[in-house]
Amino acid sequence: MTSNSTDGFEWTKEEGLRKGVPTIGKIKPATNISSTNHVFDVVIVGAGYAALTAARDCTVSGLKVLLLEARDRIGGRSWSSNIGGYPFEMGGTWVNWGQPHVWREISRYNMRKELEISQDYSHGINQFSVNVAGKTSDMNHDEEDAIMESALKKFVNIDGQYGRLIMPYPHDEIHNPAALPFDKLTAADRLAQIGDTLSAQEYVCLKGFILLCSGATLDTMSFYEFLHWWALCGYTYGGCIEYLIKYKFRGGQSSFAINFWNEAISTNNLSYTFNCPITTVEDDGNKVVVTSDDGRQFKAARMICTIPLNVLNTVRFSPPLSIGKQRAANIGHLNQCTKVHAEVSNRDLRSWSAIDASSKLLYALGDGTTPSGNTHIVAFGANETHLEPEKDIAATTQVLKDLVDMDIERLVFHNWSDDKYAKGAWFFPGKEFVTVFSEELRARHGNVFFASSDWAVGWRSFIDGAIEEGTRGALDVMKDLSNSRSRRDLTKL
Amino acid sequence: MTSNSTDGFEWTKEEGLRKGVPTIGKIKPATNISSTNHVFDVVIVGAGYAALTAARDCTVSGLKVLLLEARDRIGGRSWSSNIGGYPFEMGGTWVNWGQPHVWREISRYNMRKELEISQDYSHGINQFSVNVAGKTSDMNHDEEDAIMESALKKFVNIDGQYGRLIMPYPHDEIHNPAALPFDKLTAADRLAQIGDTLSAQEYVCLKGFILLCSGATLDTMSFYEFLHWWALCGYTYGGCIEYLIKYKFRGGQSSFAINFWNEAISTNNLSYTFNCPITTVEDDGNKVVVTSDDGRQFKAARMICTIPLNVLNTVRFSPPLSIGKQRAANIGHLNQCTKVHAEVSNRDLRSWSAIDASSKLLYALGDGTTPSGNTHIVAFGANETHLEPEKDIAATTQVLKDLVDMDIERLVFHNWSDDKYAKGAWFFPGKEFVTVFSEELRARHGNVFFASSDWAVGWRSFIDGAIEEGTRGALDVMKDLSNSRSRRDLTKL
Repeated sequence: MTSNSTDGFEWTKEEGLRKGVPTIGKIKPATNISSTNHVFDVVIVGAGYAALTAARDCTVSGLKVLLLEARDRIGGRSWSSNIGGYPFEMGGTWVNWGQPHVWREISRYNMRKELEISQDYSHGINQFSVNVAGKTSDMNHDEEDAIMESALKKFVNIDGQYGRLIMPYPHDEIHNPAALPFDKLTAADRLAQIGDTLSAQEYVCLKGFILLCSGATLDTMSFYEFLHWWALCGYTYGGCIEYLIKYKFRGGQSSFAINFWNEAISTNNLSYTFNCPITTVEDDGNKVVVTSDDGRQFKAARMICTIPLNVLNTVRFSPPLSIGKQRAANIGHLNQCTKVHAEVSNRDLRSWSAIDASSKLLYALGDGTTPSGNTHIVAFGANETHLEPEKDIAATTQVLKDLVDMDIERLVFHNWSDDKYAKGAWFFPGKEFVTVFSEELRARHGNVFFASSDWAVGWRSFIDGAIEEGTRGALDVMKDLSNSRSRRDLTKL
Repeated sequence: MTSNSTDGFEWTKEEGLRKGVPTIGKIKPATNISSTNHVFDVVIVGAGYAALTAARDCTVSGLKVLLLEARDRIGGRSWSSNIGGYPFEMGGTWVNWGQPHVWREISRYNMRKELEISQDYSHGINQFSVNVAGKTSDMNHDEEDAIMESALKKFVNIDGQYGRLIMPYPHDEIHNPAALPFDKLTAADRLAQIGDTLSAQEYVCLKGFILLCSGATLDTMSFYEFLHWWALCGYTYGGCIEYLIKYKFRGGQSSFAINFWNEAISTNNLSYTFNCPITTVEDDGNKVVVTSDDGRQFKAARMICTIPLNVLNTVRFSPPLSIGKQRAANIGHLNQCTKVHAEVSNRDLRSWSAIDASSKLLYALGDGTTPSGNTHIVAFGANETHLEPEKDIAATTQVLKDLVDMDIERLVFHNWSDDKYAKGAWFFPGKEFVTVFSEELRARHGNVFFASSDWAVGWRSFIDGAIEEGTRGALDVMKDLSNSRSRRDLTKL
């Protein structure tokens, strides 16, 4: 059951550009409450995976939850449009069984057999194209892997063991405090250290890959954070592919997210309102009052705030957020990734991939085959040369065609930079951010708890990290309410 | 707070052999119910990780749970004794962040920083000893890894890609049906196929390693199941070490298990009785009546049975279990591993490891340093040459000393084979078991649901698999009760 969200864009030759795409993640009706008088146990702001997990865990444990979401759909920065029965992933896409929080849910919802692999090298041109200074070289994917591996190993080899000594526990990243100084480096700083050792192809491939990860610029992105990704991926390029860009849901992310929603709804403990952006959060010490932009007020004993880092400061908190949280939100993260799906009639491109580190879409690959037999290409750009496809479709198609000759029938995308509820894609920080602000961002603020993949401990930036944080937020609120109620019961005696 | 379980053995030079060791996993009081009249929502039989997870999830969701456990402690086949403040792991030990279910819990209980590494090659003799036909060769651990890797790659390379083609999804193991025929092979069958390619050292190392995994015999253990372990471990020997035998809880397994227990208890929805072996389970279609060996009867709407495969047939079910379940339980699994801890005064042995595939303890390694500065050695035997340490301590110490010269001050162990509530260690099957019986073992039987790592989908045999199964069992029961209550409500209308 798909219906149109106001989010996302679709362009076709016949119909041109349209705002809004169909998704199974749009919830109908858009609200199930008629009054705002009730004082809920918890108000959860947001409907991405952190919020969905928190809502699911809280409602299952018997708490009365009110969920408020600015958009018309669930999923936050991970959702799939569904066009002609085919899911295009508008944001977060890939998952792996080594990502503990997301896989626990995939297992629990019995979706282990719902995965498919983005890459298909079984037919077609089976080719990787790398563009160095205007000249494109074509090679096979084994050669691609060899260049990538060689370049990445040079990039991360800060300890003679490819990061294993400096960051031995990816889920306890400063276990070895020797990791800390690496957060003083940007990617550009690190590249300067190893520049002499890289071939021109290696440099371009490396640049393409790390900008794919960060959606930022080499001059600003934290080298430490990339090292953390690398550690999470098992300290190998093969691991990076396995974890970052290989396995996706056959039915799209929204087919996964809807399970959390349905379970929460089935408890009869979930009240909700979509299309409800909030403006202020007031905590009087006993309860939290949340005001929406149309002036409605909602009350709850506790709040779980899953508002992304880059928009946290658009909400006024009373009492104000800590200086640390305010500073962190002002600085924000750097990921202004552009992700564009192209449906192309060139079937041979199913097994194609490319890096052109000077293109506005610097990393592209065959990602699927649509029901009509066309090839689905996905392409990523970073903030080095920012592209907003809806503002110039002709330029966008030209950027794609400059990568390889293709006949584009459809484009699908979400402009995360121009999205006022995200102001960017997945979290990727500048230097001296994570090691300075993460703990502060995780801290509660009176009756308000914070949960977002943007400050997760493990797979920060990932769906896994969002579920990690939603789990933590729900548990903290459950414990807190249980304690305060025990105290209240005691004072009655 | 430790107290003595009746489980486990400790031997010291001064005190000789004693049955029962201290653990933080013994729950006091041993029961919190005074009558058996109540009809619970769920009765959970067992207190290992499957049962603890199910009890935690069910109680948190508001169900009234009765947990019945035959032993005096939680943890089932994973528990730690605590002797002089030092945890000796009596069963399941190692965990990893790539094991999704267990890591989700480690993250949720904020225990990410509670891990330590078994191996410590920073001082001492730093040596691996391999015994081939009575002659011991000593080498460094890099040489050990090289032999192991070479041998294992030959063993699993059934597709030119070290198993990746035949079993591409470790959590969907027959995704490629071409995996199925490999369950017709025992390890010995597979060894016969590659025997000509192995050096004598490679053969011994390989034999030691696969018997370490199975606790069985080469002639009987399933090659397919080993392949599944290999796939779970990322298709590399390095992955095997990372996942199988590296990271353990500084405070012991029981320090982890107690969190599940405490959370369940905190809901006020958990009733329980330890020291309560059960004899019969009768399902009248509306409720389940469980009878204990002292004649008490307990009633619940549903049951989650976590009784291990090898003892499932010691309980009488009415109506009887399906033929498939009965057959599976009669066949059972093959793991009769002997695990012995030795506290030795030889500090140099902290960095020692050994394989002697003809020894009754065929795989041994330095596993820690005790508070008194002694080295803690752990050694494993398999059913090829079965050892029951408590029956002949002198012989056991001699087996250890034959591996390397050591001065033994203490032995600590649990005889899993002689344990009537386990009849074996972690699950490891013979050929044509998993591919024939697993789904059947997961199936519900009327109002009785089954949850055990012995038939998990993913990390079967592991703590992770137990948590996977406890999660599934709880969710299935919650859904089932919710459905039947909705139906009941409807019929009232």
